[in-house]
Formats: sequence, C-alpha cells, structure tokens
Amino acid sequence: MATTKYLRTATGFLMVLTEGDDLFAELSALAVAENLPSASLTGFGFAGSVTFGFFDFAKRDYDPGTFTDREMTGIVGTLAWKEGKPSLHAHGVGGGKDFSVVGGHLLALTVGKGSLEITLTVHQQRLERKEEASIGANILRLAAS
Amino acid sequence: MATTKYLRTATGFLMVLTEGDDLFAELSALAVAENLPSASLTGFGFAGSVTFGFFDFAKRDYDPGTFTDREMTGIVGTLAWKEGKPSLHAHGVGGGKDFSVVGGHLLALTVGKGSLEITLTVHQQRLERKEEASIGANILRLAAS
Amino acid sequence: MATTKYLRTATGFLMVLTEGDDLFAELSALAVAENLPSASLTGFGFAGSVTFGFFDFAKRDYDPGTFTDREMTGIVGTLAWKEGKPSLHAHGVGGGKDFSVVGGHLLALTVGKGSLEITLTVHQQRLERKEEASIGANILRLAAS
Repeated sequence: MATTKYLRTATGFLMVLTEGDDLFAELSALAVAENLPSASLTGFGFAGSVTFGFFDFAKRDYDPGTFTDREMTGIVGTLAWKEGKPSLHAHGVGGGKDFSVVGGHLLALTVGKGSLEITLTVHQQRLERKEEASIGANILRLAAS
Repeated sequence: MATTKYLRTATGFLMVLTEGDDLFAELSALAVAENLPSASLTGFGFAGSVTFGFFDFAKRDYDPGTFTDREMTGIVGTLAWKEGKPSLHAHGVGGGKDFSVVGGHLLALTVGKGSLEITLTVHQQRLERKEEASIGANILRLAAS
Repeated sequence: MATTKYLRTATGFLMVLTEGDDLFAELSALAVAENLPSASLTGFGFAGSVTFGFFDFAKRDYDPGTFTDREMTGIVGTLAWKEGKPSLHAHGVGGGKDFSVVGGHLLALTVGKGSLEITLTVHQQRLERKEEASIGANILRLAAS
C-alpha cells in the first residue's frame, strides 16, 4: 500500500485512504502537517465501520449508531480548528448490500476493503469552531468574536 | 450570533447559516450582493424543516414533502439566474433520529438548532436557467441560445 | 437542446447533461477531449435509470441493482485513467417519488427528463487507477508505484 496518503492539488488536496485508516485521524494529521488554515471537503468510498450521531439537545450530546460495510455515497464536511486542534465536522450517507441508505453526523469512520477518496478545497483563512453555549453544539465562526 | 454569514475564499465563498435562516433567501442575497455570475455548491448541517419535491411531468410541478429535524448529510446544487433573479437548483438528503434517510429536489430549507455550512465554487460566466418547454422544467444553459 | 455539454470554469468544468445522456460516456468523452489529468466531481439531477453496485469480495465483482426515475441527490466521484482509458469512480444516492433513498457505487446512469449537472475540479497530476490484487478492486494511486 502506498505511504503517500494525499497529494497537493491546484485547489487543495486529494487524499486516498485504504483499509484500516481512520478518517478523523488522517484528516487531523493532514491539517497539522500542512498547517491548513481551513478547508471544505467531499468524499466517498468504502467504510468498514461508520458511526453516525444525532444530536440530542436535552443531553447536549450525540446519540450514536454504528454500521458496518457501507459504501459511503457522499461525505460533506469542513476542517477547521478548535482550541488549537484540528476540528472536522462532516456528515455522510452510506448504502448497504441492498442499496438502502443510512446517514447523519459523522462521529467515526474506519475505511474498509477498498478505499476512501477525499477532496479538500483549502481556504486561506484560519477558522475556528466554538461551542454555542445556548445549544451545546460547535459552530464554525467566520469572524473573530 | 455573528452577523457575517459568509466569507470570500480563494475559490468562492463559505457560508455558515444558523437557526431560523432560510437557505434559499440567504443564497439569493449572496448572489445579488456579490453579483455572482454562477456557482456550484455543496452543503451540510441541521435543518429544522426541509421540503423536498418530486417532479410530476404530467402536472409540470413538484409534489412536495416536508420533514422536520433532519441532519442534512449532503446538499449539492448550482446557483445561477433566471429572468434577472437568482435561481438556486439543489438536491439534498437528510438523516433522522434513527439514521434513516430521505431526499430529493430541495424546495425549501430552514436551518434548525446548530448550523448549516455551504461551500460555493464561483464560476466567472453568468449562467441562466430557462424552462424547457417540452418538459416544463428549468434547465441550466451553458451557452447563449 | 444545446450541443455544448460542458463549460470550462476557473477551477475545472461545469457539465449539463440532458435526457438520454450516459454519464459515464460523457465524462469519458470530456476526459479525452480535454486531456484531463484527473478531477474530483460532484453532481445532482434526474436519472431515468441508475445502476448501483455493492462489491462482493468473494466474487471480486459488483452485485448490481437498477432503479428508474430517481432524483439523484448527490453524486461524488473522481475521474482518472486506467490503462490509457478514462476511469470514473463515483458513488451516488437517489430519492424516489416518496423521498425514500437508495444508493451505492455507480455502475451506470442515464439522464431522465430534466437534467444532470456535474461540477468538476481539475487536478494537474495525471492519476491512474490500478487493481489492488489482494482485493480485486481498483484503487486510485497518488504516486508512481
């Protein structure tokens, strides 16, 4: 398996992950290594395991659900920073053997047999997520506040 | 909540909407304010209410369906012009509390608790949608006709 | 119907397909005509017929499923080369009349009444897909190997 997991492109990066790779860890590693200010991303590929969450505003936390062997048919997200660390916010949908689809906020994803391809469009502004106290959820901030 | 709803990036704009914002109104406002020639977009986030439509070619109109509290797991669209006004064409899918997913042509979307993040890639050509008389649906035109 | 199916943009191409167009054939034609090194893409629109596949690693082939009249709510993919020919890898989801959604790896798609809009972000590196012998699936290579 290639050791190069991503390539710099004219507009950002193209990342190809393979079996066993952790999407959140790999994107965080790229953000740190490349000192990425912020980015938008799309992705697709095969997840050996994917955990979605649905936010419970009463608990101020996500109720998780884990699914195995899913063709991720669309991941959309942004990569920014929170308290000095990379902060990925992404949602996704995944189809199963019968082509039925589940999806939601991505909490975790490990690549399965095959690959996961992610395209990042880099923005030059360093952006931060901050918790919105009134709802307990993180919000991407476009301006210093 | 910040009053700045979008940021100019190297390739277009990054927009962050919050509770109560109307996706169609906000993208139209951006198109007018920035004199946007045309753009492609992706988005994700939380919809308090989202209305999908499925086109009925006999009626030449969309049959609507409205859903509440959906994690929008992928919005894909283009922003152009029709008869002098901004014209958004977008499709989307949204996951529910049980991670089941619904989707279709977007007719309306109001952001729920949390946020909706939209990434626009701007094109320099001013593009128009025109109704295709034979089917009653709007088609994006790439050339003057 | 316009004969121009795509437009060069600042970051790549915008393609608009109409009824009867074959997504795979049209993207391959663009790759050849424009000598496209590689590209990432997103798309949405109406499919008259779409065939998804779910990879069976025992058979080393996809089990197919075909659906008609689907609002494609999100196509995400990459366009590269394999053995001198354009190689499209894309996944997608499609909503039906009742807004239920199916999806998976795209094996074929013919545009239905209406249109299908595809946005390509071009990368300057010529990229190749190669079969990963251990799993029988094609993997996008980021470096010569």
